[in-house]
Amino acid sequence: MKSSKGISHNVIDRLPRYLRFLTDLQEHGEERISSKEIAEAMNTTASQVRQDFTIFGSYGVQGYGYQIDYLIHSIKRILGLNKKHQVIVVGVGGIGRALLEHMDFESYHYQVCAAFDVDPDVVGKQINGVTVHHMDDVEKVVGDRKIDICMLTVSKSAAAKVAERMRRMKVSGILNFTNVELQFGDKDIFVRNVSLLDSLFTLTYYLEENNL
Amino acid sequence: MKSSKGISHNVIDRLPRYLRFLTDLQEHGEERISSKEIAEAMNTTASQVRQDFTIFGSYGVQGYGYQIDYLIHSIKRILGLNKKHQVIVVGVGGIGRALLEHMDFESYHYQVCAAFDVDPDVVGKQINGVTVHHMDDVEKVVGDRKIDICMLTVSKSAAAKVAERMRRMKVSGILNFTNVELQFGDKDIFVRNVSLLDSLFTLTYYLEENNL
Repeated sequence: MKSSKGISHNVIDRLPRYLRFLTDLQEHGEERISSKEIAEAMNTTASQVRQDFTIFGSYGVQGYGYQIDYLIHSIKRILGLNKKHQVIVVGVGGIGRALLEHMDFESYHYQVCAAFDVDPDVVGKQINGVTVHHMDDVEKVVGDRKIDICMLTVSKSAAAKVAERMRRMKVSGILNFTNVELQFGDKDIFVRNVSLLDSLFTLTYYLEENNL
Repeated sequence: MKSSKGISHNVIDRLPRYLRFLTDLQEHGEERISSKEIAEAMNTTASQVRQDFTIFGSYGVQGYGYQIDYLIHSIKRILGLNKKHQVIVVGVGGIGRALLEHMDFESYHYQVCAAFDVDPDVVGKQINGVTVHHMDDVEKVVGDRKIDICMLTVSKSAAAKVAERMRRMKVSGILNFTNVELQFGDKDIFVRNVSLLDSLFTLTYYLEENNL
């Protein structure tokens, strides 16, 4: 299945992994890398890497490799990470708090403008510089700002209602950690479901399959 | 690409979503469902659902649908969730703590036997009934128990070293939240990398693509 930019979804799914790997190398002062080295680090083949990288017209030079800065720049451009994105975190329980405390938003131009919860123990607190407001005030706090992404970590029972509220607020996308499958009929909002349970389940499958 | 059981990896990746959706229905007292209803809830097509479900020899009955209990039982059997799995959580910072507090391990026969960290503020504490031990004691605490899965949430700098220690302890699989790509040359241990950043990046891509 191809995206409207003509890039297959499988390639899109691999780009973040390339990006994280290459960014690590860049931080360690590396400048060039071959498709073979990338393939070894990422458990794929050099020809797969070269094939994937044709999407940004970069073919590397035989025996010389790719310029890491250029790869990072190109991947960020395709993913849209060269622009700023406004983020809110809705639900500041375990996962929401962990996201606020540990996710490397700033390196990738994500700006977390506010967080929301209903629990009086957490409303009014600051976590990693982000103020937690009461959920009742979400429209007021956000105001005229265009929110690109809501990271949704509320309880399962609240998920659908809060998601609908985000749609009405014209939030562009929801990263949905609630384990409730959210779907919208319209094209106004895009949802990506993230389930930590799913990754545990598929790992379990592969252990069985390999008799581990 | 197909697994050794002859099931494509794409189908394996979809089974956990079906399982969560069907389990919710079961908890609400539902008994039967059609491929069309499943497809609508999961943003796919009825023929895709029927195709996927052929892996457990269940074709449903025209106009009658699938028996939810049977689907759940079949998916769990294929994923290996009908057996108990021993889990340890290594790293009890934000994500590790959130996993211990919120992940629904018990419903799926995962038994979290212990957690480990080096931070004196957390070592010795109990989180959701699980004792946090010092990392130095990991071999002693685990003892002769066969650990199926290590949920690894340590810092990036510690990731490779701790993962290697898990391999030596004959842990079967690592669910790797460290954002470091872990690969092992041998077949003794299986790693599944989970990056929350990756899902944020791909969501950002799809927002751009849809001009949201």
